[in-house]
This record gives sequence, C-alpha cells and structure tokens, in this order.
Amino acid sequence: MISPGFLFTFEGIDGCGKSTQLALLREYLSSQGVPCESFREPGGNIVSESIRDLLLHSDHPITPTAEVFLFSAARAQLIEQDIKPRLEQGITILMDRFFDSTTAYQGYGHGVMDADTLQKLHPFATGGLLPHRTYIFDLSVVEARSRTQQQEKDRIEQQSEAYFERVAEGYRQIASTASRYMILDASRPIGELHDAIRGDVTSWIHPAQGE
Amino acid sequence: MISPGFLFTFEGIDGCGKSTQLALLREYLSSQGVPCESFREPGGNIVSESIRDLLLHSDHPITPTAEVFLFSAARAQLIEQDIKPRLEQGITILMDRFFDSTTAYQGYGHGVMDADTLQKLHPFATGGLLPHRTYIFDLSVVEARSRTQQQEKDRIEQQSEAYFERVAEGYRQIASTASRYMILDASRPIGELHDAIRGDVTSWIHPAQGE
Repeated sequence: MISPGFLFTFEGIDGCGKSTQLALLREYLSSQGVPCESFREPGGNIVSESIRDLLLHSDHPITPTAEVFLFSAARAQLIEQDIKPRLEQGITILMDRFFDSTTAYQGYGHGVMDADTLQKLHPFATGGLLPHRTYIFDLSVVEARSRTQQQEKDRIEQQSEAYFERVAEGYRQIASTASRYMILDASRPIGELHDAIRGDVTSWIHPAQGE
Repeated sequence: MISPGFLFTFEGIDGCGKSTQLALLREYLSSQGVPCESFREPGGNIVSESIRDLLLHSDHPITPTAEVFLFSAARAQLIEQDIKPRLEQGITILMDRFFDSTTAYQGYGHGVMDADTLQKLHPFATGGLLPHRTYIFDLSVVEARSRTQQQEKDRIEQQSEAYFERVAEGYRQIASTASRYMILDASRPIGELHDAIRGDVTSWIHPAQGE
C-alpha cells in the first residue's frame, strides 16, 4: 500500500548534530522498510548544487537580499524537481535544513528582512509545502563551535559568534510559532536524541504504513 | 548641483530594438553632460553575471519557480550593489530589462505564477524601487524573429513562437497598468523612435539638471 510520504526537517546552527541525527533516522527507517530519502539545503540536485556553490564559495560579496533569493531558488528547484514527486510516490523525505534556516540565518542572523516578511516570501518558493515535523536542535554557540573547530569554514560559517547567537535565538523564537516544531536539547547524548526522534517519527509513520 | 538620478527601463521581446535605443539614448545623454550609466538584466556585476550564466546556459532544466527566484536574486544584487548607490549620487540609470521582464516572460509566457502574484513578489527583490519611466517596444513576433534569426539563441530565446506571442501580449497588458509605461511601435524607424524617447526623457531630466 502506497501512503503519501512524510516530510521531516532538521534545523539548527552548524555543529548542533542535526546531520548525524538525520543519518541515524534514515538508517533506522530504511531498516524498517520505510521508503525514505534525504536531501540537504541548499543543494540536492545539479542546479541547486550550482546555486549552493555560488552561495557558499563566491569570491565576491553577495548582497543580503540576493542571498535570500538564491536560497529560495535552490529550494524551489529541489521541491519541484525532487521532493514533491517523491512525496506523491509515498516516499518519506528527511531534509537537512529547509526554509526555517533562511528565517533563522538571513532573518534573525543578518536582519535582511524581518521574520514576518520572510514568512510571507517562503510560500512563493515552496508552493505552500510544510514539513509534518521540524526538529530544532538547540545548542549553545560555544559548544557548537567547539564541535566544528577542526572543519574548514564556508562563507556563512565564517560569521561572528554574535551572529550565531542571533541565529540560535531565532530558532528558539521560530520553535514557538507552530505545533510542527519540536525543540531538542542538542547537548544530550547522540543515542538519547535518536531515541526521542525515533519515538516521535514512528507516531507519524507507522499508522500511515498500515501497521 | 547634484540631483537624484532617474531610472529608465527598456522592455520588450528579443529583437524589438530596445538595446539599440538604450545605446542611442545613453550616447545622447552623455553628449549633454548628464551623468548616466546602463545595466542589463539579468547581470551587470560579477555575481549577477554568474546567475545570468546559470539561467541562460544551464545544461540541466531549471524549474519555473527557481527561474523566477534566480532572476530576482540577480536583480536584488544589481540594485543593492550598483543601482541604488548610483541613483543616490544623482546618476541616471538606463536598464535593459527590469522586473517587468519577469512578469512578461515567466508570468504571461510560462504561466509560472500569475501577474498579480509576481507583482507581490517583485518588491521583495527591488526593495520597492520603481522606474520613473518604462519604454515598452511593441513588435510582432514575426518581425522580431526576422531581426534575430542570425543570432545564436540562448535557453530562453529557443522557446516557441506561441510563447513569445504570450510574452508580447503580456507586455501590452502590463503597459496598461500604470502611468509610468510608454508603449512604442517598435516597427518605426530607429531615428523616429529615438526622437520620441529623447523628447520624453528630456521632460524628466532637464528640469532636474537645473536647465
């Protein structure tokens, strides 16, 4: 029986552990026979990865509003080309970042547009698609930075600590705006976090799979 | 005396003669000592030209909504980096295409979003900047095509004749929506069109230059 796919998104500042948790959940769902794919934003297909490359590695400064539109372009391409067709086939999609990242980073972090304006802009890019659940991994900027200090930083990751504090606080604000958000204390052990997410996801997935 | 700059935009289907007329007007204004620069859309600076290259020469299909957002990204970059600072310095700007092109091509041509929706989206990219005057060069698709048949066509120029008919009709619709539009019969001789535009532009520019 084909059920419509579910969309779960993973959000938080770099170093919060969302990609690790996404990989663990994907592995678990696959082991349970749930058709499941994952994508990262910005990127996920050839056109969107070209946009990602421009966004993260441009040698020339990208203006704040152009940045918002480039993220939105990559997102629209990913949704139209990859995500919507898979959801219609009943495939569950896990996303490493979605439009909440733009609200947190460009809205709260950079102050390009306020969060309300960005919430009005997002539906143009998403066609109104909303995640069934969004996990927000809340972690102090100091701890997140200590986890990522060995990595080479891209253009956005090179921003100041104050910037990331605004982004982290932005995520907390976003988490309070709708019931689809679940905020997680990302300082907890990996296994505990995975158990919490797995418990939540299986409340959505199993009934739809006809269990 | 520094006056605020004026923004004049040139619109129409490919082959309508807008770029020729823009060059003639720029030459005339420069000869009169009017500080004047021109830009083309999409493009005009390094970041926007990278986006232009992706838009016009991508080997992979770009989805309709992503296309709208890429045009908007290139536009936002051009406005924030180049156009607004020059207008504030009193430089007159001539633009070969602006957001009306997106309404005509992606809205009327492709039907990605309707014109009303696009009109709501444009201010996010432009920050509300509007041209003082927009010249729309109206020409039959057959005549426009005969003028451009020698040129190598980019991804958008390779579309069907029916598509360009919708775009040309879209421009006529757009021209009726606000007083800033002046529709010109682009089948008229180059010199006559230039005289008409020069007459109109000098009604704006000379008083502001303190003549």
